[in-house]
Amino acid sequence: MTQDHSGTALQLRSTVKKEGYIELTLAEVPIPEPMGDDVVVRVEASPLNPSDMGLLFGPADMSTAEVSGTAEQPVVTARIPPQLMPGVAARVDQSMPVGNEAAGVVVKAGASETAQALLGKTVAILGGAMYAQFRAIKAAQCLVLPEGTTPAQGASCFVNPLTVLGMVGTMRLENHTALVHTAAASNLGQMLNKVCLKENIGLVNIVRQQAHVDILKAIGASHVCNSSTETFMDDLTHALVETGATLAFDATGGGTLAGQILTCMERAANQKAQAYSRYGSTIHKQVYIYGGLDRSPTEFNRNFGMAWGLGGWLLTAFLLKIGSEAAQQLRDRVAAEVKTTFASHYTREVSLAEALQLDAISVYGKQATGEKYLINPHKGVA
Amino acid sequence: MTQDHSGTALQLRSTVKKEGYIELTLAEVPIPEPMGDDVVVRVEASPLNPSDMGLLFGPADMSTAEVSGTAEQPVVTARIPPQLMPGVAARVDQSMPVGNEAAGVVVKAGASETAQALLGKTVAILGGAMYAQFRAIKAAQCLVLPEGTTPAQGASCFVNPLTVLGMVGTMRLENHTALVHTAAASNLGQMLNKVCLKENIGLVNIVRQQAHVDILKAIGASHVCNSSTETFMDDLTHALVETGATLAFDATGGGTLAGQILTCMERAANQKAQAYSRYGSTIHKQVYIYGGLDRSPTEFNRNFGMAWGLGGWLLTAFLLKIGSEAAQQLRDRVAAEVKTTFASHYTREVSLAEALQLDAISVYGKQATGEKYLINPHKGVA
Repeated sequence: MTQDHSGTALQLRSTVKKEGYIELTLAEVPIPEPMGDDVVVRVEASPLNPSDMGLLFGPADMSTAEVSGTAEQPVVTARIPPQLMPGVAARVDQSMPVGNEAAGVVVKAGASETAQALLGKTVAILGGAMYAQFRAIKAAQCLVLPEGTTPAQGASCFVNPLTVLGMVGTMRLENHTALVHTAAASNLGQMLNKVCLKENIGLVNIVRQQAHVDILKAIGASHVCNSSTETFMDDLTHALVETGATLAFDATGGGTLAGQILTCMERAANQKAQAYSRYGSTIHKQVYIYGGLDRSPTEFNRNFGMAWGLGGWLLTAFLLKIGSEAAQQLRDRVAAEVKTTFASHYTREVSLAEALQLDAISVYGKQATGEKYLINPHKGVA
Repeated sequence: MTQDHSGTALQLRSTVKKEGYIELTLAEVPIPEPMGDDVVVRVEASPLNPSDMGLLFGPADMSTAEVSGTAEQPVVTARIPPQLMPGVAARVDQSMPVGNEAAGVVVKAGASETAQALLGKTVAILGGAMYAQFRAIKAAQCLVLPEGTTPAQGASCFVNPLTVLGMVGTMRLENHTALVHTAAASNLGQMLNKVCLKENIGLVNIVRQQAHVDILKAIGASHVCNSSTETFMDDLTHALVETGATLAFDATGGGTLAGQILTCMERAANQKAQAYSRYGSTIHKQVYIYGGLDRSPTEFNRNFGMAWGLGGWLLTAFLLKIGSEAAQQLRDRVAAEVKTTFASHYTREVSLAEALQLDAISVYGKQATGEKYLINPHKGVA
């Protein structure tokens, strides 16, 4: 351990090379000296979220990944299909730090009172460049975790919990009364179930495996539809009639699922309609795509009338829309419930170097439900 | 001609038969007697709009159409693919009148002053069941055409003109500053060009043929992109940069066009962006699908960031949103400009019986640009 917190430390970097591949390295960067309102956090836990994968791997085909370098400083390279290079033209040959969120201990602080007050505190932080041993940040951006919370417990305070609260907030802002969620057995999906149960909000969970149905039933979910069964469309329509859900958040993005949800929403609406309307029901049906677990094209038949919308949904855009005060209320709620409603589960804790080994990449890179990794940048560091 | 306007008259009907086919007939229905505020319009012109085809043909495969019956009362039948029957379950075995809009002369009126005042006037009317020799309607729903306007000139007062004004209105309501339009050489597309030229609104026209580029250039269009050329994506991106258009109305619905527009909008936005953002530009990009000329599935790759929306757009929903006073202002504008900005062009005028002949169906059923038919329900009637 760098006891004096000076010198250099490791930071994970991702670079799209103009030759058509991605390169992941561990750079040696100076440990920052905090000024004024800044603090330096010794990062002890940072999750590998699906939302990190886009920056980490870019559009590379990770089945082509190779590792070189040393055990302490591995170098991962993987080919990017040529037709996908234009999509990342803006980041070519820029060495980019990665990692949306983390938790750790404030080990250095600038001269200001607010910064000094954080010394020794365990805090959660958001803002990129978290796959690093140390991270400088404004004191005001630190979410102080309740006494007795470990960095591992607080590592996922922002992305998943705020996304869950953002979904519920969007539902209310846009005058819907219940929700549909896909890839619903994920950490995020389980949190959403807890929040909806607590607030008595109808929630239709969509999963692809019976094992995931079981996970959700075990935590009290009322409506779980398995898209791999033959009765899926009927089951989903039934659940939509029961809950009245007209808003869905889709983590998969690709394939036919978003369209199937709109189709079933329309069927549910027409069960209540009085007469045939050639333009379909007048009830607005909305699906927001907030992830891209399925990279294939999105495809749908327009058999759900005219009152429908499909769009992208981004947490940061939602937080901007509701304003900083409302956003802080959401953050405070997360901190208060980080060990209950917003508890996360990880399969494995890895060091920065271990995160760049093929065995690890092949697991967390799949973004499969129940296979979430946590980076501890100081793991194994003497 | 039924000089005394009593007895029965012809009305076109469409029925989805439970055996899996569509049946088009000419029913003999009583000429209505108007009461109170009602008038009866002798329909002299009613367009075959793309928006009529859904009710007229349902999901039938019109390449299987056959005609029986007599020359005066033909009966058209065509098979509906079995997998499409569930989509029209609500209208099975209901004999439905067809035809969104028309113009004609008020030949009978109820006792009220407003109704009596319309006797002998040429009016445009909207509301279904217009493919008929006579149509009863509330006096207040009649748009009186300026002196000297023929029914043929006023037949398309509502659907296309109000859709055009609705597109411009939506652009302003949702804070966009310029527009993209597909199938842009259509009657509707030409009207949109005239309105945008008049109001100095940037408009990017998308067509599929050089002949359509020429049509639009001839009426003064600045930006016309031909989607069948190899440079389409670059041309479109360039036009989007020039106009700043972030809102598109797509008449085709199916295939990849909507997604291509979003892709080019994102490229245009990124030309102005300062730094790489993994979530794409923060500029909201919107495509509304308002037609279904292409019946194939809608398909897109999500390579346009997260700030995007795709949705259905329906004129009636827009008119409801802006309220009756604003809607009436739009109608009055159409009446005033029906021979200029909102002039329509037809390839052929057909009787009701001629509209049910295979040669006619094979032309207007294609909904091809420059192949628009007008029904004159009294054509050839002695």
